[in-house]
Amino acid sequence: MSSLVEATESGFNEAAAMPERVPRAQTATAVTLDSLTLDSGEVLAPVTLAYETWGRLAPAADNAILLCHALTGSAHARDAELPDDPRAGWWNPLIGPGRAFDTNYYFVICSNVLGGCNGSTGPTSPHPADDEPYRLRFPLVTVGDMVRAQHALLHHLGITRLAAVAGGSLGGMQALEWTLAYPGDVARAVVVGASAQLSAQGLAIDDIGRQAILSDPAWQDGSYAPGKGPATGLGIARMLALLTYTSPAGLAERFGRRAATQPSTWPSFGPRLDVETYLHHQADKLVRRFDANTYLYLSSAMDRYNATDGRGSEADTLARVQAEVLAVGISSDWLFPAAHVRALAEGIVAAGGRARYVEVQSLNGHDAFLKDWDQMEAILRPFLV
Amino acid sequence: MSSLVEATESGFNEAAAMPERVPRAQTATAVTLDSLTLDSGEVLAPVTLAYETWGRLAPAADNAILLCHALTGSAHARDAELPDDPRAGWWNPLIGPGRAFDTNYYFVICSNVLGGCNGSTGPTSPHPADDEPYRLRFPLVTVGDMVRAQHALLHHLGITRLAAVAGGSLGGMQALEWTLAYPGDVARAVVVGASAQLSAQGLAIDDIGRQAILSDPAWQDGSYAPGKGPATGLGIARMLALLTYTSPAGLAERFGRRAATQPSTWPSFGPRLDVETYLHHQADKLVRRFDANTYLYLSSAMDRYNATDGRGSEADTLARVQAEVLAVGISSDWLFPAAHVRALAEGIVAAGGRARYVEVQSLNGHDAFLKDWDQMEAILRPFLV
Repeated sequence: MSSLVEATESGFNEAAAMPERVPRAQTATAVTLDSLTLDSGEVLAPVTLAYETWGRLAPAADNAILLCHALTGSAHARDAELPDDPRAGWWNPLIGPGRAFDTNYYFVICSNVLGGCNGSTGPTSPHPADDEPYRLRFPLVTVGDMVRAQHALLHHLGITRLAAVAGGSLGGMQALEWTLAYPGDVARAVVVGASAQLSAQGLAIDDIGRQAILSDPAWQDGSYAPGKGPATGLGIARMLALLTYTSPAGLAERFGRRAATQPSTWPSFGPRLDVETYLHHQADKLVRRFDANTYLYLSSAMDRYNATDGRGSEADTLARVQAEVLAVGISSDWLFPAAHVRALAEGIVAAGGRARYVEVQSLNGHDAFLKDWDQMEAILRPFLV
Repeated sequence: MSSLVEATESGFNEAAAMPERVPRAQTATAVTLDSLTLDSGEVLAPVTLAYETWGRLAPAADNAILLCHALTGSAHARDAELPDDPRAGWWNPLIGPGRAFDTNYYFVICSNVLGGCNGSTGPTSPHPADDEPYRLRFPLVTVGDMVRAQHALLHHLGITRLAAVAGGSLGGMQALEWTLAYPGDVARAVVVGASAQLSAQGLAIDDIGRQAILSDPAWQDGSYAPGKGPATGLGIARMLALLTYTSPAGLAERFGRRAATQPSTWPSFGPRLDVETYLHHQADKLVRRFDANTYLYLSSAMDRYNATDGRGSEADTLARVQAEVLAVGISSDWLFPAAHVRALAEGIVAAGGRARYVEVQSLNGHDAFLKDWDQMEAILRPFLV
């Protein structure tokens, strides 16, 4: 089964002060699987996965690269109509003929994660029992479940082994999980700004963001009507998360203590600053394009991911890796500190595997994997040639 | 005029897993000034300042040390009844006979800041026009105003020159401001975990915390009844601020990813973790002891403080300093990074003044100035002998 769905803007590439881009209709494909058994033992049925592809699958089906998106991303990694607009697809500048993910050679595929709100089955999808949105009836999904769903999708497409899997942040966790759950099915893996688990500080920040959503009266225990969600709570969660995607030095350079130059609908106590209106603007953008319940589910999945769960020690876990791994840290990342990403690569090597570590030098913080295109291209290209 | 008020727990010394301390009545003195002209030009009248003192003022009034408290602190820096309980007063272990702030020699004084809610005039105080709390009718106060009020208080007590002024965080900003606003009136200044202004990241975090308060329906535009304030919003602001008082490495060491071992009244989405219940517990504690409007005013004053405002360049500003300055950074502080504190000391020296920089080596983050007693004592003592 497949159907056409409308994909949304990825929304992650928010590098510059930007006039709002007019959303354009994109066609994307979706596959519906009869069912999927989750890590929890629950069976979810049916399960739709929205996905997009670029390039052509070779007759031997040996040239596929799976891209895994981050927390609020979508399947729209590349925009074929606007291939040079970095904001039109979340990894747009890296995908296409002659680019790092070279569509002259590779068949590139990206699917919206299980539990997402951009075409795949998630809390906003109709529950088969009553056609009402799942909302909180949706089961807790894990990074393992997301990867299992991707694996099923690829099998449906006749792909039994990936030439590569790649992703950043929550997408990097998925790429890592691929090498552990399906070690024989991945030749190479690119893990950017991610490690085997989130830090205690990251867990704390995510919980505070969720508290903002859960305590917003408009959340209504998750039963808000479509379009009437907890905008304030989700906005606050987004502002907080966005801070973790930036770096102190980057914010200092870009905003410092400058007075606000843009309007904001958020309240102010005392004079308003530019760094504040920047966050307000980003919060408003996310609220328009993303579902609050979905945010709870996906951020919780990110928090609960621990690559070693059920796999013994870290050494035992990393000894499973058969793929050649490229771990990419970001010098100013404080959500996934570069030292943690480096430690992942070192752990794989120590366990007898093949891994390299490369670092993006940037003030953009965690978000560098969606902004520092030249460095990303220079790092990815030799690994994928 | 003076009156007896009941001081509250400082609440800052939250080093260990703690059974709730039973609040004990403390006596503290207060002085009421007829009026105070604020930086804004507004005149606030009358102005009460709650304060406590330890030791004896010398006949020449030349042995006074003023201690300046942090964002949610109080005048209760030392607890004479429980002098060895670090949680009984916010700098308790550092004050007393034979301690760094040696009451055998010094007359130590600490006042609740102007705008505070622990005895000094602030948003919870009765407005003279109608005896109803000021709430949002309270004017925006600045760090300069806080220091001007302290200066008036000291003059009232017959103290025209301080042997030293000392404080951490917002209290460190006050100590610095003393050296700039009243350069001839301070012999020595101790600035801990503070610099001439908050970073862009710090400004952003504070704004997000205020948004949580401002968007809590219980806030009611600041007009909530006493005891019925925006507990959720203030709690979220506190959790967020508390994160900036800790360090990533400290949280990792203390909590890691451990499942919750303590209950929490805050909602959870997915399994609950210990790092979360720690934050919830601290949030609940602050909500019980602190006023939300006051939090808005004081955090805004901290954000708006810029030592150079109206004083020219940074070099021009720091050239005003006549006091001998001890700047104390904390190795893991990310609210006021050690490099910024060091830069303050270097700037004073470059401008022809006398300053030293010393660093507390700690995983406690910003809070180290309220936790690492041995290092603090060892750093402060030689400076104050």
